Amino acid sequence: MSRFLSSKYKDLTPYVPGEQPKDRRYIKLNTNENPFPPSPRAQALAAEAAAGLQLYSDPECTLLVEKAAQYYGIDRDEIIFTNGSDEMLNFAFMTFCDDNRPAVFPDITYGFYSVFAELNHIPYTTIPLRDDFSVGVEDYLGLNKTIFLANPNAPTGLALPMEKIEAILQSNPNNIVVIDEAYADFNGESAVPLIHKYENLLVIQTFSKSRSMAGARLGLGIGCKALIRDLNVIKYSTNPYNVNSMTMAAGIGSLEDTKYFKTTLDTILRNREWTADALKALGFSMTDSRTNFLFVTHPKLDGGKLYQHLKDRGILVRFFNTPRLKDYNRITIGSKDEMQVLVSTIKEILEEST
Amino acid sequence: MSRFLSSKYKDLTPYVPGEQPKDRRYIKLNTNENPFPPSPRAQALAAEAAAGLQLYSDPECTLLVEKAAQYYGIDRDEIIFTNGSDEMLNFAFMTFCDDNRPAVFPDITYGFYSVFAELNHIPYTTIPLRDDFSVGVEDYLGLNKTIFLANPNAPTGLALPMEKIEAILQSNPNNIVVIDEAYADFNGESAVPLIHKYENLLVIQTFSKSRSMAGARLGLGIGCKALIRDLNVIKYSTNPYNVNSMTMAAGIGSLEDTKYFKTTLDTILRNREWTADALKALGFSMTDSRTNFLFVTHPKLDGGKLYQHLKDRGILVRFFNTPRLKDYNRITIGSKDEMQVLVSTIKEILEEST
Repeated sequence: MSRFLSSKYKDLTPYVPGEQPKDRRYIKLNTNENPFPPSPRAQALAAEAAAGLQLYSDPECTLLVEKAAQYYGIDRDEIIFTNGSDEMLNFAFMTFCDDNRPAVFPDITYGFYSVFAELNHIPYTTIPLRDDFSVGVEDYLGLNKTIFLANPNAPTGLALPMEKIEAILQSNPNNIVVIDEAYADFNGESAVPLIHKYENLLVIQTFSKSRSMAGARLGLGIGCKALIRDLNVIKYSTNPYNVNSMTMAAGIGSLEDTKYFKTTLDTILRNREWTADALKALGFSMTDSRTNFLFVTHPKLDGGKLYQHLKDRGILVRFFNTPRLKDYNRITIGSKDEMQVLVSTIKEILEEST
Repeated sequence: MSRFLSSKYKDLTPYVPGEQPKDRRYIKLNTNENPFPPSPRAQALAAEAAAGLQLYSDPECTLLVEKAAQYYGIDRDEIIFTNGSDEMLNFAFMTFCDDNRPAVFPDITYGFYSVFAELNHIPYTTIPLRDDFSVGVEDYLGLNKTIFLANPNAPTGLALPMEKIEAILQSNPNNIVVIDEAYADFNGESAVPLIHKYENLLVIQTFSKSRSMAGARLGLGIGCKALIRDLNVIKYSTNPYNVNSMTMAAGIGSLEDTKYFKTTLDTILRNREWTADALKALGFSMTDSRTNFLFVTHPKLDGGKLYQHLKDRGILVRFFNTPRLKDYNRITIGSKDEMQVLVSTIKEILEEST
């Protein structure tokens, strides 16, 4: 740290992204990436956009907004796009939290929430998940705080049904409830239709996971017009050209290619069920994942050991070394081939360890 | 504005990007875009990257940093890349300014500086440019404030020589001096080599103008290692994957294709001289531009009128409706064809108005 760093940030601990070791080739099942490339149409439109980069990107994302509004069944001024959903989340913390509206979220959830709160000097508290890792809805009623809920949650993979989301929205009418739906496409259920019923609802989604565009950085927020206007005040005061032309084009291509989207999504869901069954047959138990990952534990092998054994054999999974999570691993659903290698490797590890 | 917007931002006035009217096809000379597409190598690498978007982009921008460090003659940990130089500027305001280190910049300069200061609740003052639009170096000595200077400045196009930059750096040893070099490639002189001499120097550059990548969003900061570490604390607490894979690839391609870079740069400089001579022959006077635009005024035609006449005829230039700038227009140097149309159109306008 230099002597010039503002004292505001002297105690800030940045987010640590999932490891990307370069010492060898790994089967990467640690950052919930999609095993399929983006839609060929997305690739083609992005490549076309590369030829016109000398012009600024459209700060209003006009065409992308149009396609997305159509896809989600909303109006054009009910959506805003950002440089990944991390930027969207940061905008939400900036816009809707302060000393009078502290933030609240589960103790086990996306690790970036607390960093955004600290970055923006927003007071925050966490609410422990229940013993079964579920969100206890009663804990979120009448809080008078800005609520952040990942639904489905990570790394647990569990989802709340919409009537529970509605109960939280109804009992906190003077605070924004942010539903972070990074994995909602794998769940088949989204809070987006509720934005016309609740003016305090902000839904956040990303093209990173279900649309194979993690490297493109495309996130979005959906809410009533007044909320989107607020968020645009922050966007236009921070980085009006936050979405580049190639990503915008790829997003349009992805939304146009509904067949590819559905096919790849279905394949991942099928592979998830296959992997879950295979791991259960090996003695694992797991949460009821509504995402593109499994959150698994084995009675005879702790999380840290399984993580290390797999890494030694060229497979990366995600291990969280905290008291409540240390028995578990979060395993991304990759291709069928990758899942088969995973299962046979785990089988070997179990045979050697027991 | 919704009732949920934090009171912190109730008075925030966002930046207004240059107009992008869609009612007809314009010759766009209003946002200092490059008339040439990005290097074919940049385009090809970006298109290739589009096929692998399912993976997250490298938060450390390893390959891009390597190429850039080589290009600039610096170490790898003396540079940081951002989502356009606007994000870099915002990071600089966040990191190096606060109540104890207010910001200061010229009254006439990039209009976003004051927005960044207001967004981050940083007190700031402005120092008037001299009557000839030059930066009065004596005004910036011993200020005890974080100094932001665009060099060359916009919309004036004027540049400070390096010995004057050094005088400012030396007389403000306890404050960061940010030199915003968006247009430095057109000037042929950069403060980058000074980072090894002054620990309080942060140089900001962009690939938007000289490298034809405005639509890709690629900015960067160069400074001593401790400053870059500070900026990374903010980056990793805001948006670790802030540069997407396609932009990163295009940046690498641009840095590799030095011949294309030099050829397009030379052409723009030649076209600038041609345009300057042609406009002087029509009675215009102008500042000594070291950029890819001209800042021009005519004794018989005020800035607003010229702007409107040109717009009516399908040519967009930039007009600033403020007391000191209202006699002027900022005209981007486009292709030779575009410059010829501009000059003949202005000739017509002058003949009609006089």
